[in-house]
Amino acid sequence: MRFEKNKVKDVNIAYIGGGSRGWAWTFMTDLSMDEQLGGTIRLYDIDREAAEHNEIIGNALTARKDTVGKWDYKVMDTLQQALTGADFVIISILPGTFEEMRSDVHEPEKYGIYQSVGDSVGPGGFMRAMRTIPMYVEIAQAIKAYAPQAWVINYTNPMSVCVRTLYEVFPQIKAFGCCHEVFGTQKLLACMLKDLKGIENVPREEIDISVMGENHFTWITKASYHGMDLFPLYKEFAEKYYETGYSEKADHNWMNDSFACAHRVKFDLFLRHGLIAAAGDRHLAEFFPPWYYLKDPDTVHKWMFGLTTVDYRIEDLHKRLARSKRLVSGEEQIELKPSGEEGIQLIKALVGLKDKVSNVNVPNRGQVSNLPLGTVVETNALFSRDSIAPVFSGALPYDVQGLVMRHAINQEGTVQAGLTKDRDFAFRVFMNDPLVALSVNDARRLFDSMVANTQKYLNW
Amino acid sequence: MRFEKNKVKDVNIAYIGGGSRGWAWTFMTDLSMDEQLGGTIRLYDIDREAAEHNEIIGNALTARKDTVGKWDYKVMDTLQQALTGADFVIISILPGTFEEMRSDVHEPEKYGIYQSVGDSVGPGGFMRAMRTIPMYVEIAQAIKAYAPQAWVINYTNPMSVCVRTLYEVFPQIKAFGCCHEVFGTQKLLACMLKDLKGIENVPREEIDISVMGENHFTWITKASYHGMDLFPLYKEFAEKYYETGYSEKADHNWMNDSFACAHRVKFDLFLRHGLIAAAGDRHLAEFFPPWYYLKDPDTVHKWMFGLTTVDYRIEDLHKRLARSKRLVSGEEQIELKPSGEEGIQLIKALVGLKDKVSNVNVPNRGQVSNLPLGTVVETNALFSRDSIAPVFSGALPYDVQGLVMRHAINQEGTVQAGLTKDRDFAFRVFMNDPLVALSVNDARRLFDSMVANTQKYLNW
Amino acid sequence: MRFEKNKVKDVNIAYIGGGSRGWAWTFMTDLSMDEQLGGTIRLYDIDREAAEHNEIIGNALTARKDTVGKWDYKVMDTLQQALTGADFVIISILPGTFEEMRSDVHEPEKYGIYQSVGDSVGPGGFMRAMRTIPMYVEIAQAIKAYAPQAWVINYTNPMSVCVRTLYEVFPQIKAFGCCHEVFGTQKLLACMLKDLKGIENVPREEIDISVMGENHFTWITKASYHGMDLFPLYKEFAEKYYETGYSEKADHNWMNDSFACAHRVKFDLFLRHGLIAAAGDRHLAEFFPPWYYLKDPDTVHKWMFGLTTVDYRIEDLHKRLARSKRLVSGEEQIELKPSGEEGIQLIKALVGLKDKVSNVNVPNRGQVSNLPLGTVVETNALFSRDSIAPVFSGALPYDVQGLVMRHAINQEGTVQAGLTKDRDFAFRVFMNDPLVALSVNDARRLFDSMVANTQKYLNW
Amino acid sequence: MRFEKNKVKDVNIAYIGGGSRGWAWTFMTDLSMDEQLGGTIRLYDIDREAAEHNEIIGNALTARKDTVGKWDYKVMDTLQQALTGADFVIISILPGTFEEMRSDVHEPEKYGIYQSVGDSVGPGGFMRAMRTIPMYVEIAQAIKAYAPQAWVINYTNPMSVCVRTLYEVFPQIKAFGCCHEVFGTQKLLACMLKDLKGIENVPREEIDISVMGENHFTWITKASYHGMDLFPLYKEFAEKYYETGYSEKADHNWMNDSFACAHRVKFDLFLRHGLIAAAGDRHLAEFFPPWYYLKDPDTVHKWMFGLTTVDYRIEDLHKRLARSKRLVSGEEQIELKPSGEEGIQLIKALVGLKDKVSNVNVPNRGQVSNLPLGTVVETNALFSRDSIAPVFSGALPYDVQGLVMRHAINQEGTVQAGLTKDRDFAFRVFMNDPLVALSVNDARRLFDSMVANTQKYLNW
Repeated sequence: MRFEKNKVKDVNIAYIGGGSRGWAWTFMTDLSMDEQLGGTIRLYDIDREAAEHNEIIGNALTARKDTVGKWDYKVMDTLQQALTGADFVIISILPGTFEEMRSDVHEPEKYGIYQSVGDSVGPGGFMRAMRTIPMYVEIAQAIKAYAPQAWVINYTNPMSVCVRTLYEVFPQIKAFGCCHEVFGTQKLLACMLKDLKGIENVPREEIDISVMGENHFTWITKASYHGMDLFPLYKEFAEKYYETGYSEKADHNWMNDSFACAHRVKFDLFLRHGLIAAAGDRHLAEFFPPWYYLKDPDTVHKWMFGLTTVDYRIEDLHKRLARSKRLVSGEEQIELKPSGEEGIQLIKALVGLKDKVSNVNVPNRGQVSNLPLGTVVETNALFSRDSIAPVFSGALPYDVQGLVMRHAINQEGTVQAGLTKDRDFAFRVFMNDPLVALSVNDARRLFDSMVANTQKYLNW
Repeated sequence: MRFEKNKVKDVNIAYIGGGSRGWAWTFMTDLSMDEQLGGTIRLYDIDREAAEHNEIIGNALTARKDTVGKWDYKVMDTLQQALTGADFVIISILPGTFEEMRSDVHEPEKYGIYQSVGDSVGPGGFMRAMRTIPMYVEIAQAIKAYAPQAWVINYTNPMSVCVRTLYEVFPQIKAFGCCHEVFGTQKLLACMLKDLKGIENVPREEIDISVMGENHFTWITKASYHGMDLFPLYKEFAEKYYETGYSEKADHNWMNDSFACAHRVKFDLFLRHGLIAAAGDRHLAEFFPPWYYLKDPDTVHKWMFGLTTVDYRIEDLHKRLARSKRLVSGEEQIELKPSGEEGIQLIKALVGLKDKVSNVNVPNRGQVSNLPLGTVVETNALFSRDSIAPVFSGALPYDVQGLVMRHAINQEGTVQAGLTKDRDFAFRVFMNDPLVALSVNDARRLFDSMVANTQKYLNW
Repeated sequence: MRFEKNKVKDVNIAYIGGGSRGWAWTFMTDLSMDEQLGGTIRLYDIDREAAEHNEIIGNALTARKDTVGKWDYKVMDTLQQALTGADFVIISILPGTFEEMRSDVHEPEKYGIYQSVGDSVGPGGFMRAMRTIPMYVEIAQAIKAYAPQAWVINYTNPMSVCVRTLYEVFPQIKAFGCCHEVFGTQKLLACMLKDLKGIENVPREEIDISVMGENHFTWITKASYHGMDLFPLYKEFAEKYYETGYSEKADHNWMNDSFACAHRVKFDLFLRHGLIAAAGDRHLAEFFPPWYYLKDPDTVHKWMFGLTTVDYRIEDLHKRLARSKRLVSGEEQIELKPSGEEGIQLIKALVGLKDKVSNVNVPNRGQVSNLPLGTVVETNALFSRDSIAPVFSGALPYDVQGLVMRHAINQEGTVQAGLTKDRDFAFRVFMNDPLVALSVNDARRLFDSMVANTQKYLNW
Repeated sequence: MRFEKNKVKDVNIAYIGGGSRGWAWTFMTDLSMDEQLGGTIRLYDIDREAAEHNEIIGNALTARKDTVGKWDYKVMDTLQQALTGADFVIISILPGTFEEMRSDVHEPEKYGIYQSVGDSVGPGGFMRAMRTIPMYVEIAQAIKAYAPQAWVINYTNPMSVCVRTLYEVFPQIKAFGCCHEVFGTQKLLACMLKDLKGIENVPREEIDISVMGENHFTWITKASYHGMDLFPLYKEFAEKYYETGYSEKADHNWMNDSFACAHRVKFDLFLRHGLIAAAGDRHLAEFFPPWYYLKDPDTVHKWMFGLTTVDYRIEDLHKRLARSKRLVSGEEQIELKPSGEEGIQLIKALVGLKDKVSNVNVPNRGQVSNLPLGTVVETNALFSRDSIAPVFSGALPYDVQGLVMRHAINQEGTVQAGLTKDRDFAFRVFMNDPLVALSVNDARRLFDSMVANTQKYLNW
């Protein structure tokens, strides 16, 4: 890479999962609007056709006159080809198909276990991890062989397990995980400033926060806006909307949107623990024993969020496939609107253009002082030329530490289970998830059927 | 102390809670049968009369011709008097009265929370800790002032919290906690050798074990008998008696004894985790969320152990008071039968008579590698002249680590709550116990009423 | 403090050692040029007259039309008065007089031990620490009592020992130490860019660095300028000037300036260890056994730096006293020129005006992964509203770790010696400094005479 | 292995370096006198003839009527053959020949660096480590492949580096290092009891000690004899003999014996640090900068120990070769005299015959709380069936920690240098040894010539 006149124009990015219909478009759009960066995007996907479509869509963006970030999109045939010479590697894949996801989400319902997402923890998150880990072993080995100096950005869930697997296989890897759930909570705080103080249009970047925890189970321990401590305000906010829930938009009801919530779980957690949980309620709920928020569909309804179904996801994919077709044919043009994601700003910091502090998922080196070293945690970090330095974020209070620690330990067990493929051990870790409130015999039966359902990705 | 011809005859022991009707008699009896030790026992108790009775009982033992350990028993008026010049300090007190214990055990039942003992963890254990900590602060300060070099042996529950409070107040203290629950499990293994192998009368000391965990939630990770690994045998044993339970004696039914159990909880835990839980089922059950073993009285009955009532304890005390009267009057004589407790052997090791390895509760210095440093843990230790060196016991497997860690963290929170008397913080720790499966509002109500019931010991 | 329209105008700063002739003027000048801050400076000094002079000088600055930062300077009679209500506390004191400093620097010369500064480590630094620690105990207790929420900025040497003493006495203190030695090395790198690349006038702030170590023994582990890695360049630079030394200015010779150096020590250390030592050579030399750089005056001359004498310091003070007189009388006016120090920018970050990353001395929470936790280390940190979060800086390479660790351990011993006033223990720590290459008997004699010389500050 | 009637008679021991003329005979003799053990010794040596000689010598011992421990000695052709099915592996090899040892010891003398042994640290110990590590990599890989469950006992120097290499290559290995230097210090304490108290013939096993440190740089932190604290006595002893030295036997002068010393170094270290260094003076001296004890031959003479020459070692080998010949031919019979080594007792503990506490070299898991985790340290450990549990030994005092830490860090660097074969890095670690008090250029020259001298074992 050459840094010249405040620009870096020969960046090589390998995009694993480059056939994505969704997040890839967002990323391409953001790139096309930034004039300081340019180079090549190598698209790699086991669905080659999908990658080819994105090659067309990406190069069309470059060809447009109204874009300033010019990138050359190229489909690659092999991981080796994609990685060799890459400065950055982006990983954003779907491990398995909707068939396996159906088992992740719905098989446990036969035993009375309900999950709102099923991709992070719980029986679904665990099985998804079992499928994903072998894929990440392969990717990590390829990066070690072909791009050991590259920066690797992960977007796949289960986030912590994916990032950790990369480090287990190749400890010198320069990998980190990005997730936008925290940004959503910053936006909620901006809404709060309007609701309680009448301050309008606060950009989320101006809400200064310190976060700590595990991805999707992250906690804001400090929040400021222009020198103002936001915690007393949030207390007022949580109490005001504890019973009714809070909706960002008047016309926007959580019941109409599988991905929305009314923040009641977040408010309940604040009243219990005094910290602001920094993820959507659907993610947060899955980190607790069932009696909290996921006992049964009625309980879920009471807490005002939805159980995403796999049928919904399939329907959603159909819409995205149709849009892909329109984009490839030129029938539809991508709108040049910033996504609010920070991925590109992080890349700019890493090439030396502008230092940035943002939240990130990397192994714990002490940035959270009372979670195990090595566990992938989410905190702020300072991004600068060829460096990510997590900022020391202190200790979680005992009560929250107790909750997060359980999952930190399970994260370690999950990764070991996926790496060793030791079925007995895997069962013990599976059974240890707080959502699996089953007798040892029922737990065994559920485990066996879920393993059978996803067997072809496991090779156990 | 002077070591002469393999004897140490001028040992000074301060006994705090020296008016005890029960454990004190056991201790006196053991002492009277050991010829290598002798000296003075200073009895201190807030119930001076009780101490005076034990002074009479103790000196009567010394006067008997059939005793070889001769001790001079003296009641002391103040902690200062008892401690000054002491080589050893024994602490075995009842924090509060049966009135407070009634609240500990039965108040939570109003909210559907059942406890089988209520003295270690759970809402009862927490409140007992709140009462006990101020007493231990006072004791630790007195030891720092008057007997900083003495070895301090704790027998009071909640064990971990008591020992830790001593170290928090006086970090140089030489304190440790003794508990016989592990011995009971060794005896069960001896029974197993008879049941499965026909080997009779194995003394528990010959069952070589390695233990790890927190008091009453300790796990045997290795067990041998004459070079034989006992784990494969225990698997057979657990499976054989999983459904029916196991009774040590043919004529001994758990239903007739408040302190007995049929080991079904231990067997279930072995099937879940592959380790031998080393405490009575009544203690073990309290460390889990209610749905495991304590959901309701029916569930408890199914697992074949009993919920000790405070009424039972009151009745039991009456019997012991009557016996005290008979012992003081000489109507009854103590039978010279070894208790099987190891307290005296530990004292003998510490004065330099004979090294000994035994399980002990002390702050974690790394002896359990994956529990927090500072947490009071139970492992083996090497006792020698003026030294207790815990032996490095390795790491708990992830699944068990997850279970124990929650209580290790709560232990830290409980001690801080007791020391700071910060009521809001105390509530958060209280609510964080796995047994407290309540909404934040119900938890608050239960907490408030339990605080009110024990208020005079709290000064909050 | 009230944050209003991007200004904070009611800041209260307690300045302990506020009679300073030198650094105080720098600080006042910087404050007078910053329009975002304002408030009150409470000057406290055991030399009240000196504080009164600075009150006059400070208020004169405020009265000037060409200043934008307006502060009210007030002399305070007691620490309590100065601290009560303070938002910030600045500590910049001289522990003892030149009489004690003379013993620190010159007494060891009788035993063949030469020191170039004598205020950080070595026999002089140790004795200065013994004098300073009791003063810092007093200050820490006062802060705990009267300003527990204030941010405390230390400028006194020995830096690490001072900051650590504050934390030992009051663990919740929000204290940090600032030192400009690292900035000097950034400036050297800017000179290097000119010398080797012809890039002129690079501001030191644009040299992006990562530092790690202990104050005055800090190491730059990464250095960039506009995306360029400066390490290969520095290798060239060190080799080019290894023999001849390097002088920043043509007319500036290290031999004419007690505080200057020709960077030969830094170059030697780079050739040995591959890292850029980030302090003046005079400081660096004292951290090594004598045979490296301080064997005798000839060796020192060969390495091209000077041994500062106390006579020089006395002469320098006379000049500053004369200047103080001129400033008080109005005969001389302070020139409004930025000092290049960062103190004020850090204050602005802490009140919430603008986040900043800078190097800072605080206890190690893991920011240096292979130095002991608790040791005061120097690394970068992120300053934001009411928060200093050290950034995780990784591990020192083994060879440098070995060098720094010795001083980290001595730092711990020094603080314990100063707190406990245990003379035997103090002697062991003293003797353990690498500069004290003496037989046990000579070491004892030197120690005894240095203790005698500074006895009135010790109360041993 | 079968445990029967308190005996284990089918033990398989692989002996790597089984052609040894010296220590092998000691070991065979000890085995032949113990009636509880029996089995097969597989002798493996790159010098097959030497192994064959020991086969004859060993089987002759078994054939004798006056031996009770009967073992079958068999020469093996390959590591695989020797290891497959082994319960124990003994490693006792000479890395390289006397030619390389000559360079280790005498090459540094050209630069004024004197070494008394040259096999642990210093430039000689470092180069010996570079030769040894590749051999240990090979052995560790073979153990991982063929005997992963075996207990591995190392006797080769540099002890710490050898044991650590085994763990680096195969982290699950069950390896430990044995060394008798500590026993020698126990014997000195027994002599002291006679000299100062008139207590005769105290067996060293009755001197109860706690040790901590790194092999050959180990420190006794507690020592008792029958309840008596030996530290006050040792102070008297050290002061009495500080100037004159102490000789165990009237007719035994350190000047006549290359391996003897007069303990002046140990006494000096006690006066400096208050702990009893637990190794021969010749080993201890090498851990310090030259000015302490090894400045030049005169200084060494003053401290009353000798610089072993390689010529002496060659002469000694000739004697042992001659003895081997006599033993093989039957001309000479081995005398059945216990060696005082503990190896066999440790084996007996590990097969489950009798628990034992002894000092041992294993990676630090916290047994020394202020040395890095992972470093091979020497402390007591509890040996029991299939288990070695180090006992927690606390923290070294700051002054001694500073000394040992430097070598602990160098140990880490040395192992990494040997594993990575990174010559630049190796040079930095080499130069960092306290004995290497040389300019960077001289250090480079010495390093280069020593590498050249041992090149054929390095493959750099």
